[in-house]
Amino acid sequence: MPGVTWLERIMDTVADRGRELLRLRDDEAQDSLAGLCRRLIASRGEASNIALAREILQRFEGLDESDKTAFFLTLAEEFGPDPETIRAAANAFRNDQPATLVELLKVVEPPRQDLFRRLNMAPHGTSALVKMREQLLDRLPDLPLLGSVDADLKHLLASWFNRGFLRLQAIDWRSPAVVLEKLMRYEAVHPITGWDDLRRRLSEDRRCFGFFHPALPEEPLIFVEVALTQGMAAEIAPLIDPEAAIADPYFADTAMFYSINNALRGLRGISFGNFLLKQVLSELGAELPNLRHFATLSPLPRFARGLQRLCVGEVADWPVEKIDNVLDEYQDALQAHSGHASPCAAIVHLLQHRSAEDASILAEPLARIALLYLAELKQGETCFDPVAAFHLANGAILERINVYADVSAHGEAQSHSVMVNYRYDPEQVVANHEAFVRDGRIAMSRSLRREHDKHIKAER
Amino acid sequence: MPGVTWLERIMDTVADRGRELLRLRDDEAQDSLAGLCRRLIASRGEASNIALAREILQRFEGLDESDKTAFFLTLAEEFGPDPETIRAAANAFRNDQPATLVELLKVVEPPRQDLFRRLNMAPHGTSALVKMREQLLDRLPDLPLLGSVDADLKHLLASWFNRGFLRLQAIDWRSPAVVLEKLMRYEAVHPITGWDDLRRRLSEDRRCFGFFHPALPEEPLIFVEVALTQGMAAEIAPLIDPEAAIADPYFADTAMFYSINNALRGLRGISFGNFLLKQVLSELGAELPNLRHFATLSPLPRFARGLQRLCVGEVADWPVEKIDNVLDEYQDALQAHSGHASPCAAIVHLLQHRSAEDASILAEPLARIALLYLAELKQGETCFDPVAAFHLANGAILERINVYADVSAHGEAQSHSVMVNYRYDPEQVVANHEAFVRDGRIAMSRSLRREHDKHIKAER
Amino acid sequence: MPGVTWLERIMDTVADRGRELLRLRDDEAQDSLAGLCRRLIASRGEASNIALAREILQRFEGLDESDKTAFFLTLAEEFGPDPETIRAAANAFRNDQPATLVELLKVVEPPRQDLFRRLNMAPHGTSALVKMREQLLDRLPDLPLLGSVDADLKHLLASWFNRGFLRLQAIDWRSPAVVLEKLMRYEAVHPITGWDDLRRRLSEDRRCFGFFHPALPEEPLIFVEVALTQGMAAEIAPLIDPEAAIADPYFADTAMFYSINNALRGLRGISFGNFLLKQVLSELGAELPNLRHFATLSPLPRFARGLQRLCVGEVADWPVEKIDNVLDEYQDALQAHSGHASPCAAIVHLLQHRSAEDASILAEPLARIALLYLAELKQGETCFDPVAAFHLANGAILERINVYADVSAHGEAQSHSVMVNYRYDPEQVVANHEAFVRDGRIAMSRSLRREHDKHIKAER
Amino acid sequence: MPGVTWLERIMDTVADRGRELLRLRDDEAQDSLAGLCRRLIASRGEASNIALAREILQRFEGLDESDKTAFFLTLAEEFGPDPETIRAAANAFRNDQPATLVELLKVVEPPRQDLFRRLNMAPHGTSALVKMREQLLDRLPDLPLLGSVDADLKHLLASWFNRGFLRLQAIDWRSPAVVLEKLMRYEAVHPITGWDDLRRRLSEDRRCFGFFHPALPEEPLIFVEVALTQGMAAEIAPLIDPEAAIADPYFADTAMFYSINNALRGLRGISFGNFLLKQVLSELGAELPNLRHFATLSPLPRFARGLQRLCVGEVADWPVEKIDNVLDEYQDALQAHSGHASPCAAIVHLLQHRSAEDASILAEPLARIALLYLAELKQGETCFDPVAAFHLANGAILERINVYADVSAHGEAQSHSVMVNYRYDPEQVVANHEAFVRDGRIAMSRSLRREHDKHIKAER
Repeated sequence: MPGVTWLERIMDTVADRGRELLRLRDDEAQDSLAGLCRRLIASRGEASNIALAREILQRFEGLDESDKTAFFLTLAEEFGPDPETIRAAANAFRNDQPATLVELLKVVEPPRQDLFRRLNMAPHGTSALVKMREQLLDRLPDLPLLGSVDADLKHLLASWFNRGFLRLQAIDWRSPAVVLEKLMRYEAVHPITGWDDLRRRLSEDRRCFGFFHPALPEEPLIFVEVALTQGMAAEIAPLIDPEAAIADPYFADTAMFYSINNALRGLRGISFGNFLLKQVLSELGAELPNLRHFATLSPLPRFARGLQRLCVGEVADWPVEKIDNVLDEYQDALQAHSGHASPCAAIVHLLQHRSAEDASILAEPLARIALLYLAELKQGETCFDPVAAFHLANGAILERINVYADVSAHGEAQSHSVMVNYRYDPEQVVANHEAFVRDGRIAMSRSLRREHDKHIKAER
Repeated sequence: MPGVTWLERIMDTVADRGRELLRLRDDEAQDSLAGLCRRLIASRGEASNIALAREILQRFEGLDESDKTAFFLTLAEEFGPDPETIRAAANAFRNDQPATLVELLKVVEPPRQDLFRRLNMAPHGTSALVKMREQLLDRLPDLPLLGSVDADLKHLLASWFNRGFLRLQAIDWRSPAVVLEKLMRYEAVHPITGWDDLRRRLSEDRRCFGFFHPALPEEPLIFVEVALTQGMAAEIAPLIDPEAAIADPYFADTAMFYSINNALRGLRGISFGNFLLKQVLSELGAELPNLRHFATLSPLPRFARGLQRLCVGEVADWPVEKIDNVLDEYQDALQAHSGHASPCAAIVHLLQHRSAEDASILAEPLARIALLYLAELKQGETCFDPVAAFHLANGAILERINVYADVSAHGEAQSHSVMVNYRYDPEQVVANHEAFVRDGRIAMSRSLRREHDKHIKAER
Repeated sequence: MPGVTWLERIMDTVADRGRELLRLRDDEAQDSLAGLCRRLIASRGEASNIALAREILQRFEGLDESDKTAFFLTLAEEFGPDPETIRAAANAFRNDQPATLVELLKVVEPPRQDLFRRLNMAPHGTSALVKMREQLLDRLPDLPLLGSVDADLKHLLASWFNRGFLRLQAIDWRSPAVVLEKLMRYEAVHPITGWDDLRRRLSEDRRCFGFFHPALPEEPLIFVEVALTQGMAAEIAPLIDPEAAIADPYFADTAMFYSINNALRGLRGISFGNFLLKQVLSELGAELPNLRHFATLSPLPRFARGLQRLCVGEVADWPVEKIDNVLDEYQDALQAHSGHASPCAAIVHLLQHRSAEDASILAEPLARIALLYLAELKQGETCFDPVAAFHLANGAILERINVYADVSAHGEAQSHSVMVNYRYDPEQVVANHEAFVRDGRIAMSRSLRREHDKHIKAER
Repeated sequence: MPGVTWLERIMDTVADRGRELLRLRDDEAQDSLAGLCRRLIASRGEASNIALAREILQRFEGLDESDKTAFFLTLAEEFGPDPETIRAAANAFRNDQPATLVELLKVVEPPRQDLFRRLNMAPHGTSALVKMREQLLDRLPDLPLLGSVDADLKHLLASWFNRGFLRLQAIDWRSPAVVLEKLMRYEAVHPITGWDDLRRRLSEDRRCFGFFHPALPEEPLIFVEVALTQGMAAEIAPLIDPEAAIADPYFADTAMFYSINNALRGLRGISFGNFLLKQVLSELGAELPNLRHFATLSPLPRFARGLQRLCVGEVADWPVEKIDNVLDEYQDALQAHSGHASPCAAIVHLLQHRSAEDASILAEPLARIALLYLAELKQGETCFDPVAAFHLANGAILERINVYADVSAHGEAQSHSVMVNYRYDPEQVVANHEAFVRDGRIAMSRSLRREHDKHIKAER
């Protein structure tokens, strides 16, 4: 196994068994957890710190939930910096006197940051700290005071999980079971139902890549699943069907990115999705020169909610009348099936009480309103839809809207079965990114652009 | 090669060739280096930052010396924090309001720290930053203003090179040439004269271990060379003789640590020597169960200087008379050979004008005064001799003093040919460390203890 | 994945796609399979042979069953040596004229051996040949003529799978899924019910080792499963229970080898079990110095059949009366429960119509008759029981007989629930092996020896 | 190190130290070497054979030269097959009775083949057998009787070193020193003068690939050195100049194969050069899509000798007059400088007593006679020049003749400084190979073809 050498296993054993070099002194064994933490901070970098760090992490892991909360509170209250000292250092600080900056940085840094750094020296310390943050995040909503502890942990983890330290690795059926098992656990977009399902997703016409950190060699921090297809897929079911026939990747012209997952909750807010996608584009292009297109098949995770808001008139920019105008040409058909005069109301009704024969009636207006939702509904300066926000900021093109693309219960409930192809054109990625980030301009395929300009933009 | 996958090489190529995804925009190509840095800090984490970071590092590398100095000064002057903002945040800070801490930490952190973090994302970014610090350190004595830049770089590097991220690796004749080459370059204690010499040092009866960081997989950050011997070696020459016969390691009972080297100047002040030594002890013990003793054969790098000071009476605690008393029993012999009545003066004289026949006369008094030097001469709270300070703080025992142990020109000049065996007894390491760090008490072998108590301590 | 480099995958692709260097000529594409084989044999070692070999193997794989049979028959009839030429060479042969030997060996070697050697050059050729032999073996009982083809294939495979080319590898939860999957498929002694079961068998208190060949890096040729226990296990169920609690291997004093499996049918008759077992002994001893005992928990695969034969008087050496004498002391109890006066008949009856309360009655006589079966029932010069024959020839000690050790349906049917511990004492292995192979003497534990000498040997 | 795991090192130690499982019995220790060999053959595959095999190999290695000879003779005389038995089996053999074939193959196989197979089981057995054959080959010229032993060893080695078991590996500055060291030792075409020279040959604009066998993971069996250039190189000096500036491989359009070496003399007659070259073509093409041309820069190792023979009229097909005709147009110039009327004699004279100003006079006639030598001088059915024979049989094109291409003493002496570019055009390789092997037709570049047809063919 890369990353866990025999030596490291020996070291584990050494630490486990309390060999002489690394064992805790008897008096330390008596200390409270916070006491051990203070001791660890106070020590001067000796090798025995590793044993101390290990002991602290093990004890923490053994605490019950309320004791963990108490420990976090202690970290918040007693391992922070001292305001008075800070103020003095802040007043003394001058940019042309380095020593005053060094002093200021020293006193301003919460002692728990140093604690975390020293805990990281324990075997598997990084992993333990990531898990610790998970548990901290669980408590944060109820205990905002812990926000300072979280800020410190996050600051360190962001530094340690710097993109420069991550490695892209292909994941396939030759990967260690311990890694594959985690893929199954972490896949949340299109859950994997078991080893057979997993195996299909790692077959010759599929690809999977993840970022790994050297300190967590068995954890895919983020991973993307790719299907190699002929033509851009418009439906999710065939891509995740464990029984689907395996195609010859040599004849594929398109790489469909159909699932991206962040694995470790403890790394929340530290993101590498954009790096992953673009590096995978490069990889695939190098491996399979026949590939011409790179696109996602993505959900619209807030579409159902957004549509609700649109059609009850909650969105200032887009009052119901405007939406009705956008859907004008479908009014008769929609009314005939739903009994509602307002197309907007009709759509909501039909989506809720849909019968089999409604499907063809709904298809076009649903696609158009999805376009409106994606292109116009904003959250701050970016899209209301988080997946759209992510891909468009990455430089993707809003390529195609597919109705009835995900007819699973979840797909219906969340996205009314609609899915979107975001396409990555290496030639345009940078320009698209700039246009979106600076001016909020969305790159669209020619047909969507025409549709948009004719029916939606005209309304504004 | 572990750590440099095919994928990574492709990535290098990608970046090199300016493929679409990672290429610099034309306007960026016009910017000044500081301008690019500002742009990098201002951007929002997009993948194109990698190209920007790479460009900055390459341009920096291409600067001439004075332009590099200018760039460092810009970093010091324009990429620091703002005192006024800091003061405001310091005044607003309250420990029970996490948001105020987050704000304070944000404004207090010099923007160049974020710059360095982003530069680290470039291919080989970590390596470039370590080299950048090397060049910064060269300028520091003349430009103390750069101290703040150095503080920031060192802070980040210390965090990234946390012991938890380092890997112990055995280095032998099967290691990549690119690593071995560095061993030759970095060995400063007993220089390696070429590939044949190197090969001998990596033979069956030798061991070499280093710490490696995943981002610098070809750089031994620190390494130790070990000879497997029967009995504790008292001379250095046989250990580093390229022609020495190779012994069977199975019959060795002693591991002699005869050279420890830090490799990267850019990591100055970030130390892992103690971790390395102790982990190597564990390794060797596991591999070779016949090993009974672990000891160093170490120089006394300040002995010549220290003796000079002792014998001219510069050391308050140890006026010349006291030293003369310590050497009392040798007075006649020394005087006969040197013409000096004071043994101290005699020794200095003889060491400077030594003839072959003086050797046997000098041996005993030289050993005794070396013991005095090691055990009594202080620098602050620790030993004046830095190697003694290192090993004793690590929990070693001052085991034996060997005169005429290093008769090379360098050994004579620096240590008057004396070397010391520091012995590591796993059972005592923790206790010795504590005693030395808390009370300044030095663990000695029984015979040195007797010698010390009888002739030296008695004097105090 | 070790053994399948990127380069090799490229090569696969190259061959797949018929790139220029390796493509088949058009005329070759028209040939019959046997024609291609003749062409391959006739060619002079050029690189294009790889494409030819690949084509042959692919075409063979695509044949239906009857065409495969026809092809094998062609190999038997048309790719053998020529008797007349052989006789001439045999007559010309003189040991002191090397050229006559070279000529003789040349003409005597069936051309199909050379064919197989050239087929082996194709990507995955070795694997294809092993599978080809599987299919050949299936036909052998009905088509003894194919025996010559099998002899040639087996000869080559035995040479290629020489012990010197095999690698011992530990298999655990970090192994590639593609290997683990095969473990599940090949485990025939105690079938693995799924990934959860597998995972338990690879937990911290279990070990699994296999021999691998470099040309089949994903195939464990033979593997052994080991449980680390305190004391020698007497029952199989706890060792293969997926829900069993995981013990700390550090405290184990015994390694129980509870399952050994040959994986590839195509390697039938080419055995490495003895090498595997002994190398694993060394491995475990080195990894876990606390281990004191190495033993198997093995079935008696022919016990039910053998007992049947014993009790109907079919075994010349052991007429029923003698067996009755061996069981003399249990006669009353057995008769009371079974109604049979002959203990032998009683045992058979009870084993067939056993009620819960019979268990305690049966235990002792069952153990004794199992000992008789193991120690006395012969097949040629070795034991009638093949597992006993294997371990005793390997130098194991017949340590303990455990009744009710495998109460699964299969265990009852085959071994009447009895299992045996064969113990490997490194100190005695060689001597035991010699004694068994030369004189048929079985090493037994003291208590079995006593039992045997008192009750069984006495009868002879 | 790939291929030598920790486990294997432990095994070495085990065997070294004579642990219980693998130790030799005392009586074995007394046996003669031939006696041990007989014992090994007679045994039935037990694990202790490994110790026995090891002992035999070690003892052999320890023999002095004459005892080794004696041992080889014993192998020849006493470990061969029995003629009488063979004749009986040959007479009994019928192709439709597999058992008679099995019997025949059994009795015909010299027992020493089985001995070698069993020796191969020892740790590093394969390596020892390859070395054994080296020593055997040294004796073969004087002791033709050993030919039978050599035939057996070669037969086995050829089977074991089947192309299907070899791995192509790139060799660069990241390769283990133990491998690089061998590169230096085995490079015989353009010797490597030291580590600095080696390093240059492994720089970014060079490539080196070798075939490795899993049982000899540190031995490049055959390797090729490649320079990436712009345009086809016409001189060797710049390619092997340790001081040459390093070019950017991205801009190279040509891969120059400038040195191919077989490493192990013990594998003489077992060749894989053609496979290596063609696989390296594929590799380079995949790595560097800008490469357009693949060519060698090769010596004419028998040119000097061949020219001598041509010009003294020793070659039947090409009497001196015909050669003089071929060189007709240069007669005057040659005569003016040499005083010889016959151009052929003039060339030989000038090559032997050449002054600086002769160079330009000689260039054209030298090139033309080299073409004649390459294209017309035969050895059996192939070229007299072995390098030409090799590349042309591989499907290369005789592309260009370069005079003054290797002006080293060795180049002058052997090839009169001439070198040839053989070009590999993937599109033509198969056709060229066929044409050469079937009809002796040589593929030439257009200009050489014209030159040949006009001046040389016309003569016939």
